[in-house]
Amino acid sequence: MSIRVIHVGLGPIGERVLRQVIERAGFEAVGAVDIDPGKVGRDVGELIGLETPQGIVVQGDLESALATTSADIVALCTRSALESVMPDLEAILTARLPVVSTTETLAYPHRAQPELSRRLDALAREAGVAVVGTGVNPGFAMDTLPIVLTASCRRVDSIEVDRIQDAAKRRLPFQQKIGAGLDPEVFRERVARGVLGHVGLGESIAMIAGALGWELDRITDVVEPKLAEGPVTCGMIPVATGQALGIIQDGAGYRNGEPLIRMHMEAYLGAPDTIDTVRIQGSPNLTSTVRGIEGDVATAAITLNAMPRALAAPPGLRTMADLPLVSWWSGAEPVAC
Amino acid sequence: MSIRVIHVGLGPIGERVLRQVIERAGFEAVGAVDIDPGKVGRDVGELIGLETPQGIVVQGDLESALATTSADIVALCTRSALESVMPDLEAILTARLPVVSTTETLAYPHRAQPELSRRLDALAREAGVAVVGTGVNPGFAMDTLPIVLTASCRRVDSIEVDRIQDAAKRRLPFQQKIGAGLDPEVFRERVARGVLGHVGLGESIAMIAGALGWELDRITDVVEPKLAEGPVTCGMIPVATGQALGIIQDGAGYRNGEPLIRMHMEAYLGAPDTIDTVRIQGSPNLTSTVRGIEGDVATAAITLNAMPRALAAPPGLRTMADLPLVSWWSGAEPVAC
Repeated sequence: MSIRVIHVGLGPIGERVLRQVIERAGFEAVGAVDIDPGKVGRDVGELIGLETPQGIVVQGDLESALATTSADIVALCTRSALESVMPDLEAILTARLPVVSTTETLAYPHRAQPELSRRLDALAREAGVAVVGTGVNPGFAMDTLPIVLTASCRRVDSIEVDRIQDAAKRRLPFQQKIGAGLDPEVFRERVARGVLGHVGLGESIAMIAGALGWELDRITDVVEPKLAEGPVTCGMIPVATGQALGIIQDGAGYRNGEPLIRMHMEAYLGAPDTIDTVRIQGSPNLTSTVRGIEGDVATAAITLNAMPRALAAPPGLRTMADLPLVSWWSGAEPVAC
Repeated sequence: MSIRVIHVGLGPIGERVLRQVIERAGFEAVGAVDIDPGKVGRDVGELIGLETPQGIVVQGDLESALATTSADIVALCTRSALESVMPDLEAILTARLPVVSTTETLAYPHRAQPELSRRLDALAREAGVAVVGTGVNPGFAMDTLPIVLTASCRRVDSIEVDRIQDAAKRRLPFQQKIGAGLDPEVFRERVARGVLGHVGLGESIAMIAGALGWELDRITDVVEPKLAEGPVTCGMIPVATGQALGIIQDGAGYRNGEPLIRMHMEAYLGAPDTIDTVRIQGSPNLTSTVRGIEGDVATAAITLNAMPRALAAPPGLRTMADLPLVSWWSGAEPVAC
């Protein structure tokens, strides 16, 4: 028996989640919702470029889709901020369906949005289902992975996580999102307005601290442009000398003035490598490197991979640090339904 | 409030677990049991070389220790084979205490010992507590870690795990366990009798397959000696030319003749590095390396780190693949008690 999924949001990530649900064993797409009038009314197969229609038409109204579709779970892939997806989450929970969402600040909302977290947790418990925020980052590379690595330590003093990505290999919206081709002053103005930079560094820091039982005094999160020293044409956006190639972002979680958790991200056109590094200072000291965690594929994959765990989880607001190990699964032996 | 631990088995690993329980915040040693007459009656602090006695005397009788000690959990660190620890597990479950154990074949007994697994699961459910087998290997480096890494994959075709360890840095019993200093014929005779080689490779393979939903036809596990090409003196056992420095062990899990999971271990005196590598073939391809996962410290650490999860887990036989993420924790905020 497959996990039947309603897809809410068919942007770049939502489309990838939909494609995997259609292609992977153990999953079945049963509904789709998007607010874009250009997508409503179209078959999802046609929409994502498949040769055969899937018999599922994109609907414009979430509540009516929920009321008329038999499903096991909702994949919510719309916006980055929890507060902006609360109305949709409330509608889904009213329909008593569990949710896995790529909303970045839902990955670990407990620290930054304690009231909203409590409200969401209460709604999910009332509905008898789990709500899980996940994705490759936040949700995996800079939080779940370092948390798991500490399992072999008898003492952890500090954790450093680096994520380097060559943005030239990512989709156009990602290259736009990191400010490629912007003049530095435009870049900085957008950062100041909160519309440029990776969303979720603070959530990853808070998730690690929560898992390890570290009380943090404050969390910092600073975005700077990586500037081109010459013209760069390896991405989909041409970048002139002095313009931004992308972001360099640094975050830290402090206790008593000491940075216990440090995060460093580089995502720009032409970055030398795509590599995730975790350094744990403690006993023993550990250094982990992973090559190949590809942003868009991985975020969609982890969304599906978390579904069996979300279905089996106790009702409430859950995070990747609460769930049993999320892993790829063949679909041959449905874990939870 | 600390987690109160009764220690059963004070061999090399049990002693290390005890030491961490005494030294780490969030844990408290409340009892100790060993069958060695040379240990019974001694204070555990004196036994492990601490300056101050701990007021806990090693007892020789498990049932009487369980009956007279208020505790939250038992750390069982005696033998490698599940069948040999069943009487102790039954006594502990009769006392309605959860168990975390370093018994290697308990890490994932479902495949090799289905009947014993069912019986243990039933006993644990009756007792209303969880039983967890863990350790660095099996339990972490060659199973939990690769399982977690697949979370970012949309497809997994095969998994290769290598664990290389310089045995010269390990304790004497470990150097003996891997056959250092043995003549090849003695080495092979011991392997044939099943008393030499790493225990748990098959369990790691079965755990990965179970998590991913792969039905395996068969699992192989072959131990060969790594022979010295000249005299080697870097360990605690001098090794002459042609004698064994340690083990090279290869395992595989097959489906339809294809090795979906391959494991390679090298543990010998003078091995070039201590490194754990995971290669996942699929989409995307991933390569992970971790340096620093130290066998003895890590096995003891993970035993403690699994305790909060074991206390909060649903009753029954649990594995590292069933529990929410096991991580180091500061003890500042008891997770489960």
